[in-house]
Amino acid sequence: MPTRVSKQRQSVIGLLRTLNIDPAQIPRTRPFYRRIVELIERGVSGGALAPGVRLPPERDLALALDVSRATVVAAYRELESRGLARAYVGRGTFVSATSDGSAPFAWRGKISTAAIQMTDSTLRDLVRHAADPDIVSLAAGEPALDLFPTDAFRVALDDALTRHGTAAWGHAPTEGQHGFREVLARRFGGEAANTLVISGAQQGLDLLARCLIDRGDAVVVDRPGYLGSLQSFRSAGARIFGWDFVRADMDELEDLLLRYRPKLIYTNPTFQNPSGQTLPIRARRELIELAMRYRVPIVEDETYCQLSLSGAAPPSALHELDQDGTVVIRVNSFSKVLAPGLRLGWVGAARPIIEQLALMKQQIDPHTQNLIQLVVAQMIDTGLFDTHLSTLRVEHRRRRDSMARALQKYTPSGALRVGVPEGGLFFWCRLAAQASAREVQQRALAHGVAIVTGEPFYVDGGGTRELRICFTSRPSDVGVRAAKVIGASVAQAVRQSERAQPIARIV
Amino acid sequence: MPTRVSKQRQSVIGLLRTLNIDPAQIPRTRPFYRRIVELIERGVSGGALAPGVRLPPERDLALALDVSRATVVAAYRELESRGLARAYVGRGTFVSATSDGSAPFAWRGKISTAAIQMTDSTLRDLVRHAADPDIVSLAAGEPALDLFPTDAFRVALDDALTRHGTAAWGHAPTEGQHGFREVLARRFGGEAANTLVISGAQQGLDLLARCLIDRGDAVVVDRPGYLGSLQSFRSAGARIFGWDFVRADMDELEDLLLRYRPKLIYTNPTFQNPSGQTLPIRARRELIELAMRYRVPIVEDETYCQLSLSGAAPPSALHELDQDGTVVIRVNSFSKVLAPGLRLGWVGAARPIIEQLALMKQQIDPHTQNLIQLVVAQMIDTGLFDTHLSTLRVEHRRRRDSMARALQKYTPSGALRVGVPEGGLFFWCRLAAQASAREVQQRALAHGVAIVTGEPFYVDGGGTRELRICFTSRPSDVGVRAAKVIGASVAQAVRQSERAQPIARIV
Repeated sequence: MPTRVSKQRQSVIGLLRTLNIDPAQIPRTRPFYRRIVELIERGVSGGALAPGVRLPPERDLALALDVSRATVVAAYRELESRGLARAYVGRGTFVSATSDGSAPFAWRGKISTAAIQMTDSTLRDLVRHAADPDIVSLAAGEPALDLFPTDAFRVALDDALTRHGTAAWGHAPTEGQHGFREVLARRFGGEAANTLVISGAQQGLDLLARCLIDRGDAVVVDRPGYLGSLQSFRSAGARIFGWDFVRADMDELEDLLLRYRPKLIYTNPTFQNPSGQTLPIRARRELIELAMRYRVPIVEDETYCQLSLSGAAPPSALHELDQDGTVVIRVNSFSKVLAPGLRLGWVGAARPIIEQLALMKQQIDPHTQNLIQLVVAQMIDTGLFDTHLSTLRVEHRRRRDSMARALQKYTPSGALRVGVPEGGLFFWCRLAAQASAREVQQRALAHGVAIVTGEPFYVDGGGTRELRICFTSRPSDVGVRAAKVIGASVAQAVRQSERAQPIARIV
Repeated sequence: MPTRVSKQRQSVIGLLRTLNIDPAQIPRTRPFYRRIVELIERGVSGGALAPGVRLPPERDLALALDVSRATVVAAYRELESRGLARAYVGRGTFVSATSDGSAPFAWRGKISTAAIQMTDSTLRDLVRHAADPDIVSLAAGEPALDLFPTDAFRVALDDALTRHGTAAWGHAPTEGQHGFREVLARRFGGEAANTLVISGAQQGLDLLARCLIDRGDAVVVDRPGYLGSLQSFRSAGARIFGWDFVRADMDELEDLLLRYRPKLIYTNPTFQNPSGQTLPIRARRELIELAMRYRVPIVEDETYCQLSLSGAAPPSALHELDQDGTVVIRVNSFSKVLAPGLRLGWVGAARPIIEQLALMKQQIDPHTQNLIQLVVAQMIDTGLFDTHLSTLRVEHRRRRDSMARALQKYTPSGALRVGVPEGGLFFWCRLAAQASAREVQQRALAHGVAIVTGEPFYVDGGGTRELRICFTSRPSDVGVRAAKVIGASVAQAVRQSERAQPIARIV
């Protein structure tokens, strides 16, 4: 049953009492099932029967009313067809919505249990804000798109169309274009045959969640961790346990593995989203060892690993430390190194997993767009991709530094601890005072600047005093102005909390 | 539990007997759980314990062996970690695979129940064949891609990049670009706000299956019907019931609605895939009436409705007959009218459904690629799209006619009834003799021509004597040569069946 509906079960006697029915008094006019429908409908619209209440078993109600079971079945079906009830195989019939007389077709009763649980709109709202020209969005993670090499992209596109002709228009293999998979293997390591091309990392996480998780299975994720992964695992029905990624306490991780036997560990170990932290090499080695010992696959999100700001290479990736290439599944994307609008990523994993993922992908999106595979292959082959990456690194560093300084300048001293990372796209900030992150977020949004609070990055509460701010997406001058808005918002939120404090004490 | 594993349950006594264990004789060396692991492992590798067998409850085995429950738990977990068993919440631990000593990491035990059921590779194989340059594939459905207006597409692309600048690179709303949704509504009817842009119709079907179907729910589909829809509904756990679409018997449909209370009706009423048939207007009206009366949503697949070959417009679409716009959900795509490689489609439905689908899409693919939305909007606005559609209609008719004549000419008289449609992309053919469609398919493939048998289009058996042949994807001369191969393959298959026949009678 949906977790959101109450577990209350309506007994026959309870139902008759709720609906104020005396079985003997119901006129036996035909069809009798309509009478039952009317009574229950009235109960629902009057509020006596709340959504989520389980109706009595058909047999019990039939006995109590002294009618055939078929009559009750007919009544329940009629209720269902009006969207007032929903039957779940093997579990009974539940009141599903209050009566909505105006709607000719009650959709609420039609939504599946799994879908009803998908109500978290954080990602959708992030991408919506990012696309709104009236808002300076530092909420979603975007690289410096104003530096995107549009002209070179056009040339690559023209080349691809000229050289590959109609190959761009037709169906293509679910696994991805052979040539593109080879380019990926050459540039990023791994084997072409063990690569699945996808429409962005999020599609990879959805596929992996469906592939490895049964409802009720445990999963261990970074705490804090990428909110998109939490959504994917949650809607696959996983029980999610957070591992304190920043402390990187291996004993805690082993304890979680022992205690919950998770079906996978999801981690984003390099310039992590949201914390910006990188897991040190020793912790990486131990992580692989633990995964091998407990036979738990690791999903390594590599999204930010090309985005070092210091020039120093980050420690070896987990998949590089996984010598047999068996325990780590890599997920990567071009969203943060080229542009999120392109919708292009890939998964690297042992062959049996790639094969299973491809069987699943054919059903949800038979293959990823051809043209973008051809163009990005071209951009990598000609060196354009790596040139652009260098450009991004320099400019991202500049934006990080100027915005960090501005945040320092415009925020009241001690009110905000700004985590300045060595790579990636985000400041991960902590409000030092009692001020709430949501308060700061709302004040900043009112002045046209969108940022995210820490809450959606935690599975188990927390994040109420944290903020994630993307420093790469806007030119330095815009970033500085946004920092001024954020600084003022923090100041206001701090004052607000100071005013609120004494009152709370008096009361 | 996976449907593919046996339901056999191993009692403790049965297990001990199977493994030839006398509890008193097991040496009590420590750790004892390893001993249990070894014994069960030996049973699995020796074949005594088959995959799918449920192991005894931990408590029972502990009692029988006179050890603590923790010891048995440790043993079962170790088996799980070696991929030899898999625990399902609330259902127990099952033998999951025979021992695979060579693999350092046994992936087989890691795959989720739902994923294990996704083994149908028909769609993946179709798109793979279509992309193989050595095969003339008439298997997948593709329009005349050799006529794709590549140069005009380049111009539209250039224009889009020039006019919309960085809008192409950034995040975009999950529902799709506002401008593109408006263009869709203007050109294809409906309202922009009730439109969700998707990466092809298949993504729409997957979203709808997840949105409307709980495991065990019933669904009614065309028989024969689009195989991609069958895959989507099947993997959502639906019980699928076929409705004889070609006969369009409304009493049969009403009977199915009454009997199984389906959560949706999926139909492809115009130039249907695979039959090529179009549902007459009277049947359409009755369908809407039934859907309203029984409150069952209709998913109307419009993929082929623009592809009339006679010039005559097909009857009003179901969504046009649905006056309140509440009961029909439209799914459409540019795959068959422009190119499948573009990965672009849309869903039109009542607002609550679009909102729920968008919440789900954000998790699996946060938005559809921007550039392709900009370009296709441009192509529609400038009239290029409709011009191309006219070109396609003329050329598709030519290809249909020449190939139909060639099939007539090269197939033994009476051996193949070719259904020649008024629109769409396919011939739906029936072998008149005892010859098997699979036999014809294999012989044709051996000569480099790929076609599909009817089987994957039926939920309930059937299709063994039917073939679907795409007549639009190749120029007339190639189509005629392919028809020659198909004709010869039919002739051989018929001869084969005639030779086989008498022997069968003697035996």
